[in-house]
Amino acid sequence: MRTAISPVAAQPGEDIDFGPLENWIGFQLRLAQTASFAAFSREARDVDLSPGRFATMLLIGRNPGISQIALSRAVGNDKSTMTFALDGLMKRGFVRRTRLRHDRRTYCLSLTAAGERMLAKLTECATRHDRNLDRIVGFRDRAAFLRILRKIVTELS
Amino acid sequence: MRTAISPVAAQPGEDIDFGPLENWIGFQLRLAQTASFAAFSREARDVDLSPGRFATMLLIGRNPGISQIALSRAVGNDKSTMTFALDGLMKRGFVRRTRLRHDRRTYCLSLTAAGERMLAKLTECATRHDRNLDRIVGFRDRAAFLRILRKIVTELS
Repeated sequence: MRTAISPVAAQPGEDIDFGPLENWIGFQLRLAQTASFAAFSREARDVDLSPGRFATMLLIGRNPGISQIALSRAVGNDKSTMTFALDGLMKRGFVRRTRLRHDRRTYCLSLTAAGERMLAKLTECATRHDRNLDRIVGFRDRAAFLRILRKIVTELS
Repeated sequence: MRTAISPVAAQPGEDIDFGPLENWIGFQLRLAQTASFAAFSREARDVDLSPGRFATMLLIGRNPGISQIALSRAVGNDKSTMTFALDGLMKRGFVRRTRLRHDRRTYCLSLTAAGERMLAKLTECATRHDRNLDRIVGFRDRAAFLRILRKIVTELS
């Protein structure tokens, strides 16, 4: 059954023994996420911003004034990864960071006009990508699949 | 339905609008993978090696002599990410890299004795982690869930 798991093991001249990985949810989840991100990157190849910034930009756009902590939590990134991502987005002029008046330790984030335009472009690519994922998963299994993904997030957080 | 997707949106004082992300397979897949990796990292907190190296170590251990290209493909990493990972594993003395005699451009990878011992430790943690994922996904849905993950990998590769 080895060749059933992915095209990986089907490369000519290579017969890789995946051992327990073949049947481990954690590893297959990782491969699926990696493949999904690569496909999204291909959809977004003409957009001059890493598609990894899409969720961050979308959440700032829909929640202007959101704090960096709330954003990290929502995207599932740790604090230093988020700081690095936001620094890049500010340098590019897509995101603006201001301090709260009543609490100078807290930053508020919002999109600039250029950020809004960039978000619109990435949203088009993400929409195409997710339609493709919907087709792969299939209408019949979609709800159950999403329910399990959410259960993993809830129970492991 | 917003609070159903994850504990993220249920933080007190925060009511984040996830917009289309809430129902997008690509984003939920990413959150699930991030949560799964964080949980594996917690299981492996006493092991003195990043749990991100586990799949790489296991595949080298089961396929001694595997090429770097075959390994990158199997783990789903690009070439530069894999080079960085392998450099670290060689510096730590866990992996050995030799050139093929008949093709000096090709490297062959294998585990050292210290690498075998480290792999055994990480395998214990990964086994605990995957048992936990099995419990969350549930016996009834496990096969269907794995089948969809594999289908995503196959169709997007």
